[in-house]
Amino acid sequence: MKANLQNDLLLRAARCEDVERAPVWFMRQAGRYLPEYRAIRSQHDFLTMVRTPKLAAEVTIQPVDLVGVDAAIIFSDILVIPEAMGMHLVMEEGKGGPRFPNPIRLYTDIKALKEIQAEKSLSYVMDAISLTVEKLNGRVPLIGFSGAPWTLFCYMVEGAGSKDFKHAKEMLFTRREDAHTLLGKIRDAVSDYLVAQITAGVDVIQIFDTWAGVLTPEDFREFSLDYIGEIVRDVKQKTNSRVPVIVFCKGANHSISEIAATGCDVVGLDWTIDIAEAKALLGDQVAVQGNLDPSILYGPEHVIEARVRDIAERMGSPRGHIFNLGHGVSPDMDPDRLRAFVRAAKEAYTVPAQ
Amino acid sequence: MKANLQNDLLLRAARCEDVERAPVWFMRQAGRYLPEYRAIRSQHDFLTMVRTPKLAAEVTIQPVDLVGVDAAIIFSDILVIPEAMGMHLVMEEGKGGPRFPNPIRLYTDIKALKEIQAEKSLSYVMDAISLTVEKLNGRVPLIGFSGAPWTLFCYMVEGAGSKDFKHAKEMLFTRREDAHTLLGKIRDAVSDYLVAQITAGVDVIQIFDTWAGVLTPEDFREFSLDYIGEIVRDVKQKTNSRVPVIVFCKGANHSISEIAATGCDVVGLDWTIDIAEAKALLGDQVAVQGNLDPSILYGPEHVIEARVRDIAERMGSPRGHIFNLGHGVSPDMDPDRLRAFVRAAKEAYTVPAQ
Repeated sequence: MKANLQNDLLLRAARCEDVERAPVWFMRQAGRYLPEYRAIRSQHDFLTMVRTPKLAAEVTIQPVDLVGVDAAIIFSDILVIPEAMGMHLVMEEGKGGPRFPNPIRLYTDIKALKEIQAEKSLSYVMDAISLTVEKLNGRVPLIGFSGAPWTLFCYMVEGAGSKDFKHAKEMLFTRREDAHTLLGKIRDAVSDYLVAQITAGVDVIQIFDTWAGVLTPEDFREFSLDYIGEIVRDVKQKTNSRVPVIVFCKGANHSISEIAATGCDVVGLDWTIDIAEAKALLGDQVAVQGNLDPSILYGPEHVIEARVRDIAERMGSPRGHIFNLGHGVSPDMDPDRLRAFVRAAKEAYTVPAQ
Repeated sequence: MKANLQNDLLLRAARCEDVERAPVWFMRQAGRYLPEYRAIRSQHDFLTMVRTPKLAAEVTIQPVDLVGVDAAIIFSDILVIPEAMGMHLVMEEGKGGPRFPNPIRLYTDIKALKEIQAEKSLSYVMDAISLTVEKLNGRVPLIGFSGAPWTLFCYMVEGAGSKDFKHAKEMLFTRREDAHTLLGKIRDAVSDYLVAQITAGVDVIQIFDTWAGVLTPEDFREFSLDYIGEIVRDVKQKTNSRVPVIVFCKGANHSISEIAATGCDVVGLDWTIDIAEAKALLGDQVAVQGNLDPSILYGPEHVIEARVRDIAERMGSPRGHIFNLGHGVSPDMDPDRLRAFVRAAKEAYTVPAQ
């Protein structure tokens, strides 16, 4: 039996309901910038942490206790989906992030990918979610997430991060049908995975399209947004719309209205747009999240406060507003800067400017 | 005595005058994708090529002969300015691009930078320009260029390329006055350098702000665009506006109108905006350049043709239009794909679609 939420600000903000103040959380909040995270990480490799519910739950809850955020986000990695689809995932210490030594290049590679049943093949994520929900005991909502199909496609085809996504783009432009076949398979897996996360107990889901910004506006709609829209509709239909959906497409400010038209509840923003402009495009029925340049956290507290307050002023009202960074927090960030950000966000709409 | 230009399409396009067709050139066209460039490069290191007028002129002219572009752009590197200001520039083979082992971090580092007199301290660039103009003998115009102050600031403060520009951002947000002092010094050097290039014989200049997109719209205006505007006005005033100025701020589509308001003649576009939208914002007095996703060149010829034609259709008319990529060409690109792009660009407005 799930405990009632004591802090449901995120849910009310996502639904554009009345709130006392705007909730705050941040991307990669369960991560390396926290010494308490690094203490656990020093005992276990990254993928072991992802696959061990007890460890995943522990680091998921750390920023709630240590930084005071209004939501937890399940500790995991977007690449667990391609792994569940049959790709061999490795993480070599000191060699950057996780990677696939055998990337998808040929049609036979695409055909060989398995259809996932997330409740089974990603049961460790579901177990981590159940355990986290139990341990949170209603203190704050839990966010589940997935990479968007285009972002997963980039990693699966490149095998790792990339500067120009040569192989991924090459597939789009030389073998468009293969690209759509692969994107369709990823879409089905993402959709199944998000539904399973909701069943396991998350209160909100977020779909991240980290690499949206490398596509032209038209290619973004064809190869990314159409698939996100199908996922949003499928998940909402299969779960009776019981959890709000956040969609964050980094670098896709050319398509803010189109992103909202997927039927998502919240549009995530990077920092290269005036949040007032986004709000004007989105109206009162869709919430906005993000927009703070994560590098502002390298600045002193008074600069962080001023920038957070500036965002609040541009929004005008906390209704439909979720404070967040415009991208993940850097691993080298001083946790005190994050605490300053969270404090400033909590006060932005309530304490008058000096 | 400078020969009259036989092909002045770029100049007429930049001034929004009548043209038979839109001119085409592309960023990094004198570069590693050409086997004829690599043949010279295998004999000389990169910085020697930059500093030797005969070699610089030779590779500058290669794409005119080998790919058929409508303009040459002087072969050089944006980091020659910080070097002339007194920074030690090194290039280690196989270790990525040029870098500064002693980056600018303290106020004393900023104070120690020299004011440049480009005609003297960068005389090798001016010699390369004179020699190129002589060898081109009026076949096509020659473009001079400089990095924008913000982009140079990033390299000078980081010491090299960066993913998040931590040190550069840290200076903006913690020591804003120091940042402006440094940006002001770079502005003066860029301005002097561009005037010297015009005196040496270039027909057009381009200012590149490669890292514009890492700033918020407001920070972009304060730390980048204001300085570009000062440079454009200073250069125009000192040279009686005799050469057109192209300004390309990658990732700054939020400020297209503001970029035009610097007084530049041409606004460069990356591929994350619909060129028709940019044209509508800019009107008939400012030309547009770029917009093709460079990764399209990984695709087959019919896709390249279709995308080039799509850009022409969105523009409607070749007046005020310069074909280019939305970023530099990749070193691994097949030169035949560039030839296909140039051919498609030359035919886009003249041959009816099949």
